[in-house]
Amino acid sequence: MSSKISPTIVSQPRKIRVGVLGATGTVGQRFITLLSEHPWFVIEALGASERSKGKKYKDAVKWKQTIPLAGLGLGGVGVEKLSSSDLSDDGRIADVVVKGCTPQEFRNCQIVFSGLDADVAGDIESAFRSAEIPIFSNAKNYRRDPNVPLIVPLVNPSHLSIIPQQRRLHSPTLSKGFIVTNANCSTTGYVIPLAALEKAFGPIESVLVTTMQAISGAGYPGVPSLDILGNVVPYISGEEEKIEWETLKILGGITESESEVDGDGTPLKTFDMHQAGGLSPLRVSASCNRVPVVDGHMECVSVRFHRRPPPSPQQVREALAAFTPEIQSLGCPSAPRKAIEVFEEPDRPQPRLDVKGNHNGAGVSVGRVRQCQVLDVKFVVLSDNVSIGAATSSIINAEYAVLKGVVS
Amino acid sequence: MSSKISPTIVSQPRKIRVGVLGATGTVGQRFITLLSEHPWFVIEALGASERSKGKKYKDAVKWKQTIPLAGLGLGGVGVEKLSSSDLSDDGRIADVVVKGCTPQEFRNCQIVFSGLDADVAGDIESAFRSAEIPIFSNAKNYRRDPNVPLIVPLVNPSHLSIIPQQRRLHSPTLSKGFIVTNANCSTTGYVIPLAALEKAFGPIESVLVTTMQAISGAGYPGVPSLDILGNVVPYISGEEEKIEWETLKILGGITESESEVDGDGTPLKTFDMHQAGGLSPLRVSASCNRVPVVDGHMECVSVRFHRRPPPSPQQVREALAAFTPEIQSLGCPSAPRKAIEVFEEPDRPQPRLDVKGNHNGAGVSVGRVRQCQVLDVKFVVLSDNVSIGAATSSIINAEYAVLKGVVS
Amino acid sequence: MSSKISPTIVSQPRKIRVGVLGATGTVGQRFITLLSEHPWFVIEALGASERSKGKKYKDAVKWKQTIPLAGLGLGGVGVEKLSSSDLSDDGRIADVVVKGCTPQEFRNCQIVFSGLDADVAGDIESAFRSAEIPIFSNAKNYRRDPNVPLIVPLVNPSHLSIIPQQRRLHSPTLSKGFIVTNANCSTTGYVIPLAALEKAFGPIESVLVTTMQAISGAGYPGVPSLDILGNVVPYISGEEEKIEWETLKILGGITESESEVDGDGTPLKTFDMHQAGGLSPLRVSASCNRVPVVDGHMECVSVRFHRRPPPSPQQVREALAAFTPEIQSLGCPSAPRKAIEVFEEPDRPQPRLDVKGNHNGAGVSVGRVRQCQVLDVKFVVLSDNVSIGAATSSIINAEYAVLKGVVS
Amino acid sequence: MSSKISPTIVSQPRKIRVGVLGATGTVGQRFITLLSEHPWFVIEALGASERSKGKKYKDAVKWKQTIPLAGLGLGGVGVEKLSSSDLSDDGRIADVVVKGCTPQEFRNCQIVFSGLDADVAGDIESAFRSAEIPIFSNAKNYRRDPNVPLIVPLVNPSHLSIIPQQRRLHSPTLSKGFIVTNANCSTTGYVIPLAALEKAFGPIESVLVTTMQAISGAGYPGVPSLDILGNVVPYISGEEEKIEWETLKILGGITESESEVDGDGTPLKTFDMHQAGGLSPLRVSASCNRVPVVDGHMECVSVRFHRRPPPSPQQVREALAAFTPEIQSLGCPSAPRKAIEVFEEPDRPQPRLDVKGNHNGAGVSVGRVRQCQVLDVKFVVLSDNVSIGAATSSIINAEYAVLKGVVS
Repeated sequence: MSSKISPTIVSQPRKIRVGVLGATGTVGQRFITLLSEHPWFVIEALGASERSKGKKYKDAVKWKQTIPLAGLGLGGVGVEKLSSSDLSDDGRIADVVVKGCTPQEFRNCQIVFSGLDADVAGDIESAFRSAEIPIFSNAKNYRRDPNVPLIVPLVNPSHLSIIPQQRRLHSPTLSKGFIVTNANCSTTGYVIPLAALEKAFGPIESVLVTTMQAISGAGYPGVPSLDILGNVVPYISGEEEKIEWETLKILGGITESESEVDGDGTPLKTFDMHQAGGLSPLRVSASCNRVPVVDGHMECVSVRFHRRPPPSPQQVREALAAFTPEIQSLGCPSAPRKAIEVFEEPDRPQPRLDVKGNHNGAGVSVGRVRQCQVLDVKFVVLSDNVSIGAATSSIINAEYAVLKGVVS
Repeated sequence: MSSKISPTIVSQPRKIRVGVLGATGTVGQRFITLLSEHPWFVIEALGASERSKGKKYKDAVKWKQTIPLAGLGLGGVGVEKLSSSDLSDDGRIADVVVKGCTPQEFRNCQIVFSGLDADVAGDIESAFRSAEIPIFSNAKNYRRDPNVPLIVPLVNPSHLSIIPQQRRLHSPTLSKGFIVTNANCSTTGYVIPLAALEKAFGPIESVLVTTMQAISGAGYPGVPSLDILGNVVPYISGEEEKIEWETLKILGGITESESEVDGDGTPLKTFDMHQAGGLSPLRVSASCNRVPVVDGHMECVSVRFHRRPPPSPQQVREALAAFTPEIQSLGCPSAPRKAIEVFEEPDRPQPRLDVKGNHNGAGVSVGRVRQCQVLDVKFVVLSDNVSIGAATSSIINAEYAVLKGVVS
Repeated sequence: MSSKISPTIVSQPRKIRVGVLGATGTVGQRFITLLSEHPWFVIEALGASERSKGKKYKDAVKWKQTIPLAGLGLGGVGVEKLSSSDLSDDGRIADVVVKGCTPQEFRNCQIVFSGLDADVAGDIESAFRSAEIPIFSNAKNYRRDPNVPLIVPLVNPSHLSIIPQQRRLHSPTLSKGFIVTNANCSTTGYVIPLAALEKAFGPIESVLVTTMQAISGAGYPGVPSLDILGNVVPYISGEEEKIEWETLKILGGITESESEVDGDGTPLKTFDMHQAGGLSPLRVSASCNRVPVVDGHMECVSVRFHRRPPPSPQQVREALAAFTPEIQSLGCPSAPRKAIEVFEEPDRPQPRLDVKGNHNGAGVSVGRVRQCQVLDVKFVVLSDNVSIGAATSSIINAEYAVLKGVVS
Repeated sequence: MSSKISPTIVSQPRKIRVGVLGATGTVGQRFITLLSEHPWFVIEALGASERSKGKKYKDAVKWKQTIPLAGLGLGGVGVEKLSSSDLSDDGRIADVVVKGCTPQEFRNCQIVFSGLDADVAGDIESAFRSAEIPIFSNAKNYRRDPNVPLIVPLVNPSHLSIIPQQRRLHSPTLSKGFIVTNANCSTTGYVIPLAALEKAFGPIESVLVTTMQAISGAGYPGVPSLDILGNVVPYISGEEEKIEWETLKILGGITESESEVDGDGTPLKTFDMHQAGGLSPLRVSASCNRVPVVDGHMECVSVRFHRRPPPSPQQVREALAAFTPEIQSLGCPSAPRKAIEVFEEPDRPQPRLDVKGNHNGAGVSVGRVRQCQVLDVKFVVLSDNVSIGAATSSIINAEYAVLKGVVS
């Protein structure tokens, strides 16, 4: 991961105590792997189900990462260690005692990351927010909440501006707690080049996306091997709807109402669902497939621009390569050095060769930019579904919130 | 394979002596597997490269079919065997002595199937035609020839009507020889539901197709395992161009010129490339991917109809299921009982479970018919690339030519 | 499957009503696929868990076979159909209403096949036996019972001779009920060539077997794809112990005690665990691995014979090819035409190409017979774990029991 | 890779100019990936076939590594860069111009690594040796040469002591040139624990090894995907013979003749092929299989010791974990920190999770140590066939030769 941080910015953040909910699951393991090398964040607490509570992490988890658990520390590698850690004698994740998922047990955490399953995430994340603990969540439960931002960090971190309203409308009003969600893994990957294209060429009218998604996107145990070995499954439950809806919220802006106000007289903000300027919102058609690939979602994307004539493939290529999201200029430590890597080779990117190539999976890779005979331009996007598609996004969102002072 | 042949039609055909060029290759092996159980066709000669010439077939071939070679006969299972076969004592393919690919060595064949590689198919197939031997070819060499039909048997066998012109314009004029080609495997699969939809609802304006193609489509040795194991390759050389061009020839008609005539004063016929009635031709945009599947091309297809309002998904489903191509009504023995099997389950068809299900791969399977937010309707097609996508198509084309009297 | 039955034998059996327990599971689906084409057996009842009870089979099952469920009948294809079937109007499996797994609901069945999971098989199978219903079971629960035979039908069907004792020692004494088990899939495959070798060359002293087992051996959902895609797992819980123990019971004989008698004064029979003639029993060392293969267990086997000098590889090859088990001579309809197919090619058998080749998986394939530098001879065995390794074995055992009059 | 080098040792070596033959092949790419981060070695020249000669490396190679080529430097990261490099302006491998494989073009190299194919390696490596250029080769051509050492660096680097004799017997006598080979990848992996066991418990009498080998072991294009997807191939040409023979040379010692001398009167040395002390040599029986795994050879190993009683599994586990080869104590920079990692989990090691875990593939992993019912003890070994099984071994051998002064 990038360490392209200007000295002044690096000096600002202090060590920040973080927790992980759902720590033994697939996303939780990825959070821990990433946090163990994080410059600011120091793991303070791990939470999991009742079955795991009270066990050492190494005894509670069925570790499935290629990096050995034994070697992982607690993070904060850019700051001096906490003077008195109650976690473990030697600062190793493996020996941390797993807690239950209650706010009381995470009261010392300044930020909590959630890798919880959707069936429990709703209540737990709500309880943490009410207890004034900021939550950065991978779960889908609050993505459609009108006061919760749905953030792809390379695209719309500015949507954090809804948080004051989220706190204000909470009962009772909150001063520190909030929930931020990141998007579904297949949405995250392809929305990054879309954002780059809208930034360069104005609104996109329609997008047709066909995905070929990796098995790790389904968690563990996830996809049975009998279903996917030497096979393609042309269906992932709920996935197409997520892509088609989330894209509009992510690529849209936030509109301040001229008439509606809340109890304090503050104008209400709403997500405009890609309808800014009176334009029809982007039409998105998604077809989702599961393929026998371990990591890396491939997506074949065709787009039609509002602008006539549309940009040429070469202009598209250049715009994608030049895209510089705010998280880079602001100095988020986990931001990729390059948001979008554009391949010139005709047969790249490929999941097995390229999924980690773009800065440990924090950026995306685009290839095969060419004309589309039906819409305007088509290309393929490869994204690391367990990194930028999941845990990495939550972490960058949190970094951004820290740098913006949303988390104190 | 179907044996749904009405008695009167079955009585017509007599045993027909056939040859196979490129007999040791992937397509050749599939030809032999299919012909060994064919009711009419009897294998008379096998041709391969100089390296194989003079060897018994079992010694020349690296057999890669799941059906053991040892058990395969010479075909003609619906007719009495040839009284004096010079092929082998016991009528087994395994012991047939392989010949060179010269017309002289195939002079007794009434039909020759070509599974030759493109780098040699051009000259050899031309020589056979000049020697008055009809060729049904899987090679791409003559697909774009303005006098050679490009036939998907479930779609446009009527394009055989160009053959008299092909013979007449040959120098010298031919009385029996001709070349018929069948389409690229990925074109074949998806053009069958397109034909069914155009038959039911009139012209299609645009099609966007994203393929996930099996490794067997690339022959043997074909795709190196290091390229495809646990991977997706978003590129197949020349494939997208083939789909985009072949579709127009196959779905188009044949127009008789009002002005141009050949030397005999016969009006010239041309393929109208889907421009009948002054309409703009169908626009096709294809994105081709290789996936780690052994057999079965999956294709995600979105279509826009000319007709407004377009048919509903349910109407599309019904039209696909009801599609009955001429090869069925005419009684081609290798025609599938059902041209298009429509799945209702949300996660089907799948290559591993369903590729052989539709009558040993002679038909195609469609599933997930639903609205497309950008075009009108979208669905997935699964076709058996080594059966209907290759050898089976050539064989049905030949059956049709026999029943129509084009082959004597 | 073979239909090599002499007329006199075929005339003996009449239609036999059978049931299937665990009908919606992986083994159950395989039972149904096989029984739907069986000449004698007619499916009378299907049993599954409470969740499925009362539903039509097609609504209760997640069908995972490559043969479409819709086309499957009830079996008995060699006998006239039951005059009045209460199963379905048109004799299709798909419409059969699933029952609970109680003897009462299977009271009309003459034979019941069990594909139950081990956690419920114990009680249910016992209840069926007590209700005088013969059970042929794939479950492991009774394999080690001293009165229950553990039968690989190509090896030791004569162990059915323990059944009178099983009935006699049951309380109350039974006249029709019994339990017969078949072996673990990985045991079944390699014990067939071992039996052939012992028959030809006398006792084997030691066997070292390393397995590479298919995912279908673990049922559905079974092995998570994240565990096995592009991977090898060098461990299958309990598998090595099963191979090492079951081999001794299967390859051993039955000894009649000279002193111990039961209540009736009948001498007690015991399985001699391969200790006949005072020899030390065979020593078996197994190493079991899971590999990313759908169907077909490969096993690398090294054996040491008691006989000095040991047979040569060529003698071994001939003995394996010549092996003719009793189920063939007796005319069991599901017996393979060839028990052991011996490959001469250096790189065969292979699961993908050869697993179904030996008579729809009812026989096994052996290749690479050669000298072992440490023991005497080594070779590879390929067996179809879902056929001869599971449902096919139960069915042949039942056929044998019918022909021997053990089932009336 | 380890950087556990004591300061005194690090200070000794100076920058060393190295070349790579067969630079565009699979092993060559791995050499380059490793050398680009090497502390001492600096890439001076890359050689490949005529087709590649004169092209920039990035244009000549079909890069198949997961690390992007663009980012790779020339190595020597622990020493100051060469003052005047004729390789490229910016010290990137990608821009190095590929040379032909002639000694003249590599005259500035102090060491040359060979990843050449066996069909050309013989002549080229011989020519380089004659030109006084030391060669460390992965090719099999000289492994059986009685004057060429066959070195697994974690086992028998001391066999370098044969080099003076190799030079002396060359005509004309050499002062600098020599050839050192490393072993076949499947031999390398399992011989490391065997060496550890012989060191701890004395001679091993017999070994039975069954391999499950990754596709990357066959190079590129290597194994066709149609042969291995969802399959196991129970045969790798020549592999079993290599394991059975190479093991004896590697685990054996070097004996000085008491009678035979060369022209100078120097006693002749010979490899004793594991016959030291008048014992019978180790008997090795290997069964080799190809499995659909990208990287990592798994091997199931059973051993019988000469010592009675044999060590217990626990003693074996401890001896393996404690094994410390000379390359570690001597301070070879590419030596793994741990030669053998011993897993306690019952289902580990696994290729996908663990192949890189043991120090970027420079060590091996052992698991499932337990009693063998036929020999004494059995276990599984996982080794990274493209690292310690190929390029990494050559590089450590060269490091050892540098530290021992064999290369000046």
